[in-house]
Amino acid sequence: MIKFAILGYGVVGSGVAEVMAEQREKIASVVGDAVELKSILVRHGYPGDPFADKMVTDFSLIENDPEISVVAEVIGGVGAAYEYSKRALLAGKSVVSSNKELVATHGAELNEIARRKNVNYLFEGSVGGGIPLLRPLCQCLAANRVDEVFGILNGTTNYILTAMDTEGQDFSEALQKAQELGYAEADPTADVEGIDACRKTAILADLAFGRNMDASAIPTRGITKITSADLELARALDHTIKLLGHAIRTEDGCCAFVEPHLIPLSHLLASVSGVMNACVVRGSAVGEVMFYGPGAGKRPTASAVAADIIDAAQHQAYRKDTDLGAPGGVLAPEAALISRWYVRAEAEPDEVRAVFPEAVPIYGSSGECGFLTEPLDRPALEAKLPALDARAHYRVLH
Amino acid sequence: MIKFAILGYGVVGSGVAEVMAEQREKIASVVGDAVELKSILVRHGYPGDPFADKMVTDFSLIENDPEISVVAEVIGGVGAAYEYSKRALLAGKSVVSSNKELVATHGAELNEIARRKNVNYLFEGSVGGGIPLLRPLCQCLAANRVDEVFGILNGTTNYILTAMDTEGQDFSEALQKAQELGYAEADPTADVEGIDACRKTAILADLAFGRNMDASAIPTRGITKITSADLELARALDHTIKLLGHAIRTEDGCCAFVEPHLIPLSHLLASVSGVMNACVVRGSAVGEVMFYGPGAGKRPTASAVAADIIDAAQHQAYRKDTDLGAPGGVLAPEAALISRWYVRAEAEPDEVRAVFPEAVPIYGSSGECGFLTEPLDRPALEAKLPALDARAHYRVLH
Repeated sequence: MIKFAILGYGVVGSGVAEVMAEQREKIASVVGDAVELKSILVRHGYPGDPFADKMVTDFSLIENDPEISVVAEVIGGVGAAYEYSKRALLAGKSVVSSNKELVATHGAELNEIARRKNVNYLFEGSVGGGIPLLRPLCQCLAANRVDEVFGILNGTTNYILTAMDTEGQDFSEALQKAQELGYAEADPTADVEGIDACRKTAILADLAFGRNMDASAIPTRGITKITSADLELARALDHTIKLLGHAIRTEDGCCAFVEPHLIPLSHLLASVSGVMNACVVRGSAVGEVMFYGPGAGKRPTASAVAADIIDAAQHQAYRKDTDLGAPGGVLAPEAALISRWYVRAEAEPDEVRAVFPEAVPIYGSSGECGFLTEPLDRPALEAKLPALDARAHYRVLH
Repeated sequence: MIKFAILGYGVVGSGVAEVMAEQREKIASVVGDAVELKSILVRHGYPGDPFADKMVTDFSLIENDPEISVVAEVIGGVGAAYEYSKRALLAGKSVVSSNKELVATHGAELNEIARRKNVNYLFEGSVGGGIPLLRPLCQCLAANRVDEVFGILNGTTNYILTAMDTEGQDFSEALQKAQELGYAEADPTADVEGIDACRKTAILADLAFGRNMDASAIPTRGITKITSADLELARALDHTIKLLGHAIRTEDGCCAFVEPHLIPLSHLLASVSGVMNACVVRGSAVGEVMFYGPGAGKRPTASAVAADIIDAAQHQAYRKDTDLGAPGGVLAPEAALISRWYVRAEAEPDEVRAVFPEAVPIYGSSGECGFLTEPLDRPALEAKLPALDARAHYRVLH
């Protein structure tokens, strides 16, 4: 009998308890032993809850319980979540987490403690919610040099951009609808400014390139300035707009950034709509593979956390290394990265061609034009824009 | 130092040797020990080949070599591949394979031998080529009851259907083009009749439902009778046509079949074009996730086989169970499965409505009409068709 604890009983925590109980028999068969929930750390009781008898309010009861060998941290944030994760690992327990902020900030340190204690630190649910992503990236693509990882890593912003694209809503309308549906929080900053996607990009970059990146150093641009005119013009140019987390191997090292990208309609990512997430991995042997599914939500995220609990339960005496890389990974400058760009401007065709001779401007209902540039780097682009009345510019994917 | 052998030096075998050599350093770091190719079983020598010094023509040299602990079988077929896989497992070596025919036919027996010998039998490359699929299905979705698996599992037929859809080619033109490009074999039977997809469907169904299915019992219909008129009418009905392997949990047990399906254009599978493969898994906790990528080819398939070699090398003293299920799995009858259907017929609107009152027939350039029916099972559908001059009928996905 293997016993585990859950730290936190919010949306994900209650989902983990539910999913592990539902699939008790299958899980016992996979692990070769029963896996049982013993304790749930809560701030206050939940009278009448089916798991009420397992709730404790004192973490040290879990920390000091020799029967508990696996701890699922689903508290969120980097305060108590960090402290308890560290203490659980130091107590010789494996820890699994869906907390992207914690993994992006302190994951390498926690993984190093896990290594020293010969236990596991797993965090499949921290990127892509329920989508199997980190384990396939590390295990199934182990024989590849990973050259690029990019994806739609935040469901809130993808919902908003999809609504703007398909229903012609402007940003504030689409945000309000997302809030009404529970897809966006009352304070949507972390989502719409790309902060959530940035944390996930840092984790992906760490795993893909084996150097631990400082998430706060990743250039991050959100979606708040995108207008319905941008989506209209993008579509006229056979593209749509998606917020991508993007990490790419360059001659100068690993480059990572989060920003809106124009995606050709022929690319599968363009068809990923609503709150769904998808991530593309380009490897030296496999080429491009994509993983798609629900990037958030109670049961999808619980599915990923539960898979980590099962994995940790199966590997009690065997370490699975989810290597977040050596500290001190330095990002290659994004400025050097060459791509095509989309520009929206208030300009006549002649004015556009005077600056971008090959551009073919298309005019939308707002009277503004949109066009795609030849490949160039960001400083070169931005040096040209003042000559036009340019209102927006976004990178074009490949 | 962990040493492995490759059985067979065709397209995949040479890819495995190449990929394992390219990523030697990364692999050593992942495994924690060097992983070295010692022998390649060939029928004849390859003078001048970079791996010529490792080639042997006598399997017993590998079988009896105590240094070799992992064997990659990429011979294909169920003759020598079966015999050598069995002998390697009985000699206490882990075996990995991309041979779907062998895994579908004798995989459960080989897995049982592996279990007895406490070694691993892994076959990630047997379904979906380079796409990480089987490991995510078994590991990352371990906390799910899998309810349905369906996908585009054969690149040749997807290339042909894409060409028919986007270029209006008929089947024989598209097949010829696929043969010219090397996407189809001179004898294309196994691909176009759905036999290859059937083997992969059997493996997916085994893993998803935990009962070992007889691939030869899976109803299998290929794409040879699909006309360009079908694709034209499907598109007018906002669908496209894809050959799907499909396994679904029903009240009567697991039902599996391979046949052309109409896919709504809004479904991500509709956008999977050319030789690419994709597979959707529906789980009780996660909902729908999709895995996409190259389903065949030298380096993609080698990527999957190499991942299995790495996994087997990492788990020398630890069995990873890829459970193909208990023998004697009985398929639930496909006949009972209710879905909507597409029908192509030479009929006037009144004639169609006399048989399918709710149908809205659409007429294509051939003069034939296409329409979608209400949900009903196959026998009920087929009982209605003789009243119309019906030329084709295909299941509609969901």
